[in-house]
Amino acid sequence: METTEEQLLAAIRKVLSGEAPGVVVPVGDDAAVIEPGRHHAILTADMLVEDVHFRLETTSPHDLGYKAVAVNVSDVAAMGGSPRYGLVSLALPPEIEAAWVMDLYGGMRGAAEEHGLALIGGDTNRGDRVVVAVTVYGEVGQGAAITRAGARPGDRLVVTGSLGAAAGGLALAAADADRVKEVLGEDWARSLLTVLERPAARVGEGQSLARAGARAMIDLSDGLALDLSRMCRESGVGAAVRVADLPVAEGLRELQDVLDIDPVDLALHGGEDYELLAALPPHAISQVRQALAERYGTPLTDIGEVTEGALVLDLPDGRQERLEPRGWDHFG
Amino acid sequence: METTEEQLLAAIRKVLSGEAPGVVVPVGDDAAVIEPGRHHAILTADMLVEDVHFRLETTSPHDLGYKAVAVNVSDVAAMGGSPRYGLVSLALPPEIEAAWVMDLYGGMRGAAEEHGLALIGGDTNRGDRVVVAVTVYGEVGQGAAITRAGARPGDRLVVTGSLGAAAGGLALAAADADRVKEVLGEDWARSLLTVLERPAARVGEGQSLARAGARAMIDLSDGLALDLSRMCRESGVGAAVRVADLPVAEGLRELQDVLDIDPVDLALHGGEDYELLAALPPHAISQVRQALAERYGTPLTDIGEVTEGALVLDLPDGRQERLEPRGWDHFG
Repeated sequence: METTEEQLLAAIRKVLSGEAPGVVVPVGDDAAVIEPGRHHAILTADMLVEDVHFRLETTSPHDLGYKAVAVNVSDVAAMGGSPRYGLVSLALPPEIEAAWVMDLYGGMRGAAEEHGLALIGGDTNRGDRVVVAVTVYGEVGQGAAITRAGARPGDRLVVTGSLGAAAGGLALAAADADRVKEVLGEDWARSLLTVLERPAARVGEGQSLARAGARAMIDLSDGLALDLSRMCRESGVGAAVRVADLPVAEGLRELQDVLDIDPVDLALHGGEDYELLAALPPHAISQVRQALAERYGTPLTDIGEVTEGALVLDLPDGRQERLEPRGWDHFG
Repeated sequence: METTEEQLLAAIRKVLSGEAPGVVVPVGDDAAVIEPGRHHAILTADMLVEDVHFRLETTSPHDLGYKAVAVNVSDVAAMGGSPRYGLVSLALPPEIEAAWVMDLYGGMRGAAEEHGLALIGGDTNRGDRVVVAVTVYGEVGQGAAITRAGARPGDRLVVTGSLGAAAGGLALAAADADRVKEVLGEDWARSLLTVLERPAARVGEGQSLARAGARAMIDLSDGLALDLSRMCRESGVGAAVRVADLPVAEGLRELQDVLDIDPVDLALHGGEDYELLAALPPHAISQVRQALAERYGTPLTDIGEVTEGALVLDLPDGRQERLEPRGWDHFG
């Protein structure tokens, strides 16, 4: 049954945050008004498009909403900041049920509550395909934002969590159902799919890395190789990544028994893990690694070094090869 | 020819604002960072969707880009604020040429320069249809934002500019080409189409109305009737609109000779004019009307009164009828 814009907006407004710290005019007016405080403001926008980033048949609206907020929060995390406010613009096909939209907002609200941000506005439209465009406003101390541009030769390269899980989940989701149905119930398979569907934004970890003296930071949305190449380009440096030290996601070895995938290739070139990559002075690593483990249960792995040279891989057999800045191209 | 995401992003970055006042980290990092200053911040997001808000065959990318920014600026204007920064998320079908995207950004940049805002970020994706999702960050003095909620019985209702032009332009654009081809070159027809394609955001006018003591304000994106009903609902008031005093757009009388349209109906229920509707204390009108005429060449028309009753139309023959809160429903 079709819903009018007014009916849907009224329903959406109920799941949006009304009162929240710093909100002067909440959702429901021409625009929201907030009180910025004395911090610098971080602004980021990311869009998820049906049949490009997700498929309606295989994606729950709750997970989609969660992810649409989380990928934006991840960008704030990569600056060392705290998310505060979010705006959501939607395109929705007429056949979408109001209950589906409520579940979508439920997922957005879940991610928002988890990360302490208030959803304060947006726009709802008809469209042929579902499009979820989120903007997040975050805060960071004056002059304290960590860009991609400060890495220096001699810095260590560290990543949070593990790599390749989302790409593994995507391979599972895209595989012939008969071929993978026996493994879909297993823990390792669920863990891969969970990273794809509900990625963790590393907000506390990003702040800890910033405090520990991170010189450059980026979130791994498009894969380690491509995102590292971006950090290196902005910093005017090179990097050597030790393949043997990559924190390859658990489950990829098991996945390799079922599908024709290469765990190391997914860890290097698979996108959507939303882990953080940072360049740290060598002396800073052990303390922040301990802090991340204790506070968030998140491992931090030293995967290599910032250099003055090119982007290279140190292979387990001692050879070195160029690291192709190939990754998750949303245009590919 | 298809372009990769990296190539397109590099081209887009060239047309985006690099250095701008208050920008700490410009476009090109995980997120932009700005220095908010001591004002309150206004946040608004609006999305334009292919085949809902525009058609590729009849819309120039330059106009589309201009409008995508202008409709967001209009929301900032309706709060009495100044636009400062914009973020742009795009979905683009693979067959879209890079030149088309550059023209789109050219239009966005035109609107941005006209209104003094810097485009500082966004996201580019593949999609089946073109979607342009813009977020604008604006500023307003602390406690000075004009919401929809302050109108009081006895206030006068005033509108900037004229009404119904965009709906007239839409009727022209949608009409059988043979039927309207003889008039498309005439000034009145061009003026209707221009409002549809390149709406003026009333930023200076909104600030003048705020300074003059506007108690409530809204921009007319969905038509006078629907947007007035929203203002009345939020303010807990009614309104009486005098039909004889409506500033019906020039050109609609001529359009009536060609197409089966009712100028007053378009002025009441046609959307996308992006004029401002404000509730003003009666004594404040004459001075701000003069200011708007002198500074911006924009007329300000007294169209009726805020009441304690329902939403009604005062007809030219002395009768009164209910004003249906029917307008431009993007879900219709």
